[in-house]
Amino acid sequence: MTFHPDRFFSDALTRLREEGNYRRFADLERRCGQFPRALERCEGTSRDVTVWCSNDYLGMGQHPDVLYAMHRAVDEVGAGAGGTRNISGTTRAHVELEAELAGLHDKEAALLFTSGYVSNWATLGTLGARIPGLVILSDALNHASMIEGIRHSGARKVIWRHNDLADLEAHLAALPAETPKLIAFESVYSMDGDIAPIAEICDLADRYGAMTYLDEVHAVGLYGPRGGGVAEERGLMDRLTVIEGTLGKAFGVMGGYIAASAALVDFIRSFASGFIFTTALPPAVASGALASVRHLKMSQSERAAQKARVSQVRAGLDRLGIPHLDNPSHIIPVMVGDPVKCRYLSDVLMSRHGIYIQPINYPTVPKGTERLRITPSPVHSGTDVAKLLAALGELWSQCQLARVPQAAE
Amino acid sequence: MTFHPDRFFSDALTRLREEGNYRRFADLERRCGQFPRALERCEGTSRDVTVWCSNDYLGMGQHPDVLYAMHRAVDEVGAGAGGTRNISGTTRAHVELEAELAGLHDKEAALLFTSGYVSNWATLGTLGARIPGLVILSDALNHASMIEGIRHSGARKVIWRHNDLADLEAHLAALPAETPKLIAFESVYSMDGDIAPIAEICDLADRYGAMTYLDEVHAVGLYGPRGGGVAEERGLMDRLTVIEGTLGKAFGVMGGYIAASAALVDFIRSFASGFIFTTALPPAVASGALASVRHLKMSQSERAAQKARVSQVRAGLDRLGIPHLDNPSHIIPVMVGDPVKCRYLSDVLMSRHGIYIQPINYPTVPKGTERLRITPSPVHSGTDVAKLLAALGELWSQCQLARVPQAAE
Repeated sequence: MTFHPDRFFSDALTRLREEGNYRRFADLERRCGQFPRALERCEGTSRDVTVWCSNDYLGMGQHPDVLYAMHRAVDEVGAGAGGTRNISGTTRAHVELEAELAGLHDKEAALLFTSGYVSNWATLGTLGARIPGLVILSDALNHASMIEGIRHSGARKVIWRHNDLADLEAHLAALPAETPKLIAFESVYSMDGDIAPIAEICDLADRYGAMTYLDEVHAVGLYGPRGGGVAEERGLMDRLTVIEGTLGKAFGVMGGYIAASAALVDFIRSFASGFIFTTALPPAVASGALASVRHLKMSQSERAAQKARVSQVRAGLDRLGIPHLDNPSHIIPVMVGDPVKCRYLSDVLMSRHGIYIQPINYPTVPKGTERLRITPSPVHSGTDVAKLLAALGELWSQCQLARVPQAAE
Repeated sequence: MTFHPDRFFSDALTRLREEGNYRRFADLERRCGQFPRALERCEGTSRDVTVWCSNDYLGMGQHPDVLYAMHRAVDEVGAGAGGTRNISGTTRAHVELEAELAGLHDKEAALLFTSGYVSNWATLGTLGARIPGLVILSDALNHASMIEGIRHSGARKVIWRHNDLADLEAHLAALPAETPKLIAFESVYSMDGDIAPIAEICDLADRYGAMTYLDEVHAVGLYGPRGGGVAEERGLMDRLTVIEGTLGKAFGVMGGYIAASAALVDFIRSFASGFIFTTALPPAVASGALASVRHLKMSQSERAAQKARVSQVRAGLDRLGIPHLDNPSHIIPVMVGDPVKCRYLSDVLMSRHGIYIQPINYPTVPKGTERLRITPSPVHSGTDVAKLLAALGELWSQCQLARVPQAAE
C-alpha cells in the first residue's frame, strides 16, 4: 500500500476534530495602552474583547519603559541581530540582559535563548547528553519543553509523582551514590497553578547529592521582592543549580534564559546546539526585556495589584459556586472536564459577552480535565471582574453545569 | 567517586580551550542606518568596525519599511504576543505573514515558528515521530537543527553523501516501495556555499515516491525573482513537499517558517510540541518580517547589488591568490584549516584593520576546515571591498599562508 501524505494528515486532523481537540486560533490583537482590551477579527468583521487568558501577567507588554527601550533599539541598532550569538549577533543589550538576569537570581552567570521552550530543551538536552551516566529525575507534570529536552538527551529518566517528596526520595535512594543526578521541576505549574515544595526538594537534593533544575517561567517577575520567582520569595535561590525563566510572560516580551554557575553556563553556551546554531534575539527584544526586568526589580505595584485582582476573582467564583482549582498562585483554572463544553463556553463568552478565555484542551492538559484558565492581571478593572463573574454565573446556570456546595454565609 | 558538576564543566571547557575551539563572542552593535558599520566593545573601550560576516545578507535590518513596521506594531500592539499562538498570542501580523509566506512559495499554507532552528527541529521531529515507518533520507551536511529534529523523531535515518545523487538513489532503491520516505536537504549550504541539485533530487523523489523537505534559510530573499529561494529561481517550488525558511537572515528580523500543503501545515500546527507550547513571536517582529518579505518580493536592487559585491570580492581574492571555496552562491569561505590561525587572523583583522570576520571553527565546521566566512552585501561599498582585500593580502604575506597559483594574466 502506497503512502499518501495528505490523506494521512487529513485523517489525523479529522480524528482531532471528532475528539473536540482541534484548535482554532483566535485572531486577536491587543491594543497597546488599553490592555486587557483587544480587537478580535473573525470572518471579515472585528469587535472589542477583554482578554482574560494572557500570560503577559502584569501587562508589561504595554509598559512605557519597555516600549521606549524597543523603539530606541530599533532606531539605533535595527531590526534583527543579523547572526548567531557567535557570528556577529551579540550586542550590548544581550550582554547587559544576561548580567541583569544573573543578578536577579543571585547567580554567577546567565544565558539567553530564543524562547523558554528552547532554554529548557537545550539545557536539559545538553546536560543529559554530555554528563556520562546522568539520571534526570523529572516531575510527572513538567512542561513539554522539559520532557522533550530530557527525551532528546538520551539520558536515563526517572519520573516522580507530581510534587510528591516521598516518591522523589524513594527514587533518589534507589540510585547509587556515585551516579550523577539532576532533579528537574517547576515552581508554579502552569495549568493547575500549584507550587512545588522547593525547599524540601533541595533538602533531598543535598541529602542524595543531586543537582536541581527549577523552571520558574510562570513565576519570574511575579514572585519575590525583586521578581526573582518563588525561589527568591522563599530565600532559596542559592540552593538551586539552575534556575530557568522566560522573558515572554510576566516580563511581556519574548525569550528564555538560564541562570547558574559561571562554569555551567559557559558549558551550555559552548555545547548546546539549540543555543549555538540559531540567530540571536533581535536587539529590540533584548532591550525591551531588559527594561522590563529592571522595572520589576524595583516596582511592587504590579505584583500587589495582580494579587488583589486574583483574590477578587477567586472570591467571586466561590460566591457563585463555580468550581476552580484551589492553589496558592495567580492562575485560576475553572474546571469544565469536557472538550466540547469547554469550547462552547469559550465561544459563548466571546460571542455574547466579549470575553476571551481560550479553552484549554488536550494535549495541553489531560483529557477529562479540560478547563478555562483565567489569569487576572493589574490591567483588569473592578468592572472587568464584575462582568466576568456575571457572564460565568449566567453560563453556569444556562448550561446546567455543576456548582460547588456553598458554606453558610 | 562523587560527581562534581563544576569540575566536570570546567574540565570540558579547558579541553575546548586547548583545542583552540573555545568561543569568545564579539560584543558588537550594528549602527542602524550605517550598516555594515558597527561598534565593538572590548574591555571597557569601543571602536568602529566593518562587519563582513553578517547573515543579514541584504541589509534589510536597517530598511525603513521594516523599521517603520516594527515601530508601528510596538505602538499599536505592544511588546510581546502575551501567549502561545493558541492562547491569545495570534495577531493579524502573524496571520498576514503566514499568508504572505505561503504566497511567496506558491503553497497552500505556511506556519511561523520562533526560529529557523525550531521550524526544522519541530517539523522534521513531528513528521518523523508521527508517520509510522517513515524513513528520513538526510544529506550528510544538513544543518544541526535538521539533524537534531530527525534524531529526536526516533524515525529511521539514512544519511546520503552530500549532494550525491547516485548515493541518494542507491539508498532510495534499497527501501521497499510502500515505505513512506522523506528526503531532507538544503538549497544553499551555509558554510561551503554550494547549492543542491534540487531538480534531480525531485526527480528521484518522484521515481521512488518520496516526500521532499528543502531548507532554504540561506536562500530566501536572495534567490528567485521574488526572493522565494533557489527553488523559485529554478521553477521548482511546486515539486517540493515542504519549503522551510527563516526571517532572521536575508529578511533581517527573526523567526522561521514552513510552507506546504494546507493539510501538512495544519498537521504540524496541531501536533508539533515546539510550535504549540511556546510564546508566539512578538507582533513587532512579525510585522517587521512581513514588511521585509513584501519589499523583497518586488525589489530587485538589493539582490543585484549583492551579486555585484560578491563577484568583486571573489575576483579580488583570486587576484591575490587567497584560497576560497568556489561555489555559485553569495557565501565566500576563505579557507584557513587551523583553529588557532583562524582565530589569530580574525583577531588581527579586528584589532589592526577594524574588520570583523568571525572565525568559523568546530563544531560549526569539521576540524581541519576552519575558515573565515565572508558575506558581501549591498551595504558594503567599493572602498570597503578594497580595504578588506588589502588587509587580507597583507596578512596572507605576514603569516606566510599558502597562496593559490595564479593563471597568467
